[in-house]
Order: sequence, then C-alpha cells, then structure tokens
Amino acid sequence: MNFLEERIQKDGIVKEGNVLKVDSFLNHQMDVALLEQMGEEFKRRFEGVKVDKILTIEASGIAIACMAARYFQVPVVFAKKAKSINIDGEVYVAEVESFTHKCKNQVIVSKKFLQPGEHILIIDDFLANGCALQGLISIVAQAEAVVEGIGIAIEKGFQNGGRTVRNLGYRLESLAIVEDMDASTGKIVFRQQ
Amino acid sequence: MNFLEERIQKDGIVKEGNVLKVDSFLNHQMDVALLEQMGEEFKRRFEGVKVDKILTIEASGIAIACMAARYFQVPVVFAKKAKSINIDGEVYVAEVESFTHKCKNQVIVSKKFLQPGEHILIIDDFLANGCALQGLISIVAQAEAVVEGIGIAIEKGFQNGGRTVRNLGYRLESLAIVEDMDASTGKIVFRQQ
Repeated sequence: MNFLEERIQKDGIVKEGNVLKVDSFLNHQMDVALLEQMGEEFKRRFEGVKVDKILTIEASGIAIACMAARYFQVPVVFAKKAKSINIDGEVYVAEVESFTHKCKNQVIVSKKFLQPGEHILIIDDFLANGCALQGLISIVAQAEAVVEGIGIAIEKGFQNGGRTVRNLGYRLESLAIVEDMDASTGKIVFRQQ
Repeated sequence: MNFLEERIQKDGIVKEGNVLKVDSFLNHQMDVALLEQMGEEFKRRFEGVKVDKILTIEASGIAIACMAARYFQVPVVFAKKAKSINIDGEVYVAEVESFTHKCKNQVIVSKKFLQPGEHILIIDDFLANGCALQGLISIVAQAEAVVEGIGIAIEKGFQNGGRTVRNLGYRLESLAIVEDMDASTGKIVFRQQ
C-alpha cells in the first residue's frame, strides 16, 4: 500500500450507499502534509509531461491542486459551481451532477483563464461516476486547450468514471483506487497498480 | 506597498458596486507562489501565537489557509456552505450572507473537527461587511474553542467588517486594506499599516 492507501485504511470510514468518508484528512479537515505528499506524487507520475496550468473544481479539489501546483510551478484555475456577479465576460460552462449532493450544478470557468493550445493537468479529490471530471474535460475542449493528464486522489474503481475516461484515451493517474468496500465490516480493498 | 498591495495595484480591477476583481491571481485563477508568500507573511505576523488549527470557509479561503498551514504545521478545517449527505453526526451551524452572491447560506463544521479549548487561527481571502467572518467566529464560540487571530488577504476598509471585529477585541491582520477605490479611474488607495 502507498501512503494514501494506508491513510484511507487507517482513517477512512465506509458508510452505506457507497460512501467513503475521508473528511478527517482530505475534504473537511485537511492534513496539509499529506496533501503535499500527494502533490509530490502527482509530479512524479506526470514527470516529463508539459503542464501550463492545473484545472480543478471547488471546493475540495482546490487544496490538492494548489499543493501539486507548487511542484509543477504553474497557476491553478478552479471551476466555480455557481454564477457569481464577480465573473463578467464570457465563461465556459459545463453541467455537473454531484453524486454526494444529489443535485445538478453548472460549473463555469472564465474564458480568459484557459487559452487555446494550453497544456492542462486536471486534478480532483474523488472520481466516482466521473461527472465532475467530464465537465472539466468539456471545459478544456471548449477552450481548445489540451488535457495532458488527469490526477485523482481517490478513485472508486467499482463505479464507471475511471474506466470511461481511460477508454477515451486520457492518461489518468489515481493515487488510490478502491476496488471494493463494505460498510458492515469497514473493509476496503485497493486495486493493485 | 507590500507584495500583495503591489499585485492588487497591478492586476486588480475595480468595478462598479464596490467590486474589486482579483480573479486573475487570487480567487479563480490562483498564483500559488503568491499564496505561499501570503502564508509566510501570516506566520510572521502571528509569530509566537499558539495555533492548533486553521479554520477557513470554502471555496477561495481554502488555498490561502493551506499555504499558511504549511508554515504553522497544523491542519486546516474549512466550513462548508451546504448540507452534504456525507456529513453525519452533529455540526456547528452559522448563517452567512454573501456580499458577492447576494444570498444567504448556512455554513457548517463537523463538531468532531473543533474541540473545546483549541487555539484557532481564522483565515479568509476577503473581509468586507464581515458576515462570513462573524459566522466563523460564531462556530469557534459554539465549539468553546478560542479565536487566537484572524488573517485576511484583502480587507475593504471602507466597509465596516474590519472595524467591528477589531472593536470586539479580536487580533485581525489584513495583508492589504483597501481604503478607497474608484471604478471610473481604476485607482486603489491602501491604508498605511
């Protein structure tokens, strides 16, 4: 097991309904030293890949993306979940359905922050059905920029988001892939990588 | 001018309605090197202050809080804006009115991540009318934890949030305080600190 799988094993909590709670270290309380280690690991996995910018989505993707950005030395852009009066001019829009919140949101990125031809690394905390990720890929495509890779902290391997995105030919690196989990026993099985 | 005031002067855009857009480096696209410098400056300003945890609010507070947390070597907890099915058990709740979005939100923090007696540094990107900040202070009080300090990136000194919080006796450090700004000329005046 790698450092993240060990931490999930130790502090993750499996709940009914395919919910894996990692809110004590990743998406409510955040262990910043762990996030740094994840950023470093993304840099190692995408070594040699040209990255101009990291794209993520609010809220819990932001911390991981920023830590990764320190190693890539590039800016982070985060997609916003609601129309803000502070975003003027034209925006790229994608519709995203949240597994967690059971609702649809529009996510937007200002056109001025994604330029045609830019090399984009997408980073997010979770990949389950892949809906948020597809939204981000769509926004990069709208900008005529290039998705050079996708870095995910925790992929739920038993949902189809990861398979779909790999089938589409994207380079997807998930630091931990949960193959199976059981709310009654709390057992978590990771995919060998 | 300090490094942040210089950056606001260079890349900030003043809009009608007391809006200061800093979305090219702070709250949509993020200059991570600048965020690191801000984290280091918060550490310098709160040198010697006991901090167990940094508390912020999603979304744009997260990046600054995480960068500061690297220097304080403590975890970050961020208040969430909507009830998530992934948050179970008891939560602290505060009502927050957004100046930007013209709406009210409930923000919540899981009780398990704020303990009685903990020493809390609150970090956020903007302070205007102070509504978000008052919500965070209320949550710390509900937890019977202690607000040791408040670090803000940009304070709008012509709105009353900062004065109120200082009058209440809190130690508030804002890296840049905008005293006056003019949408017609684009001119920004900072308070001497």
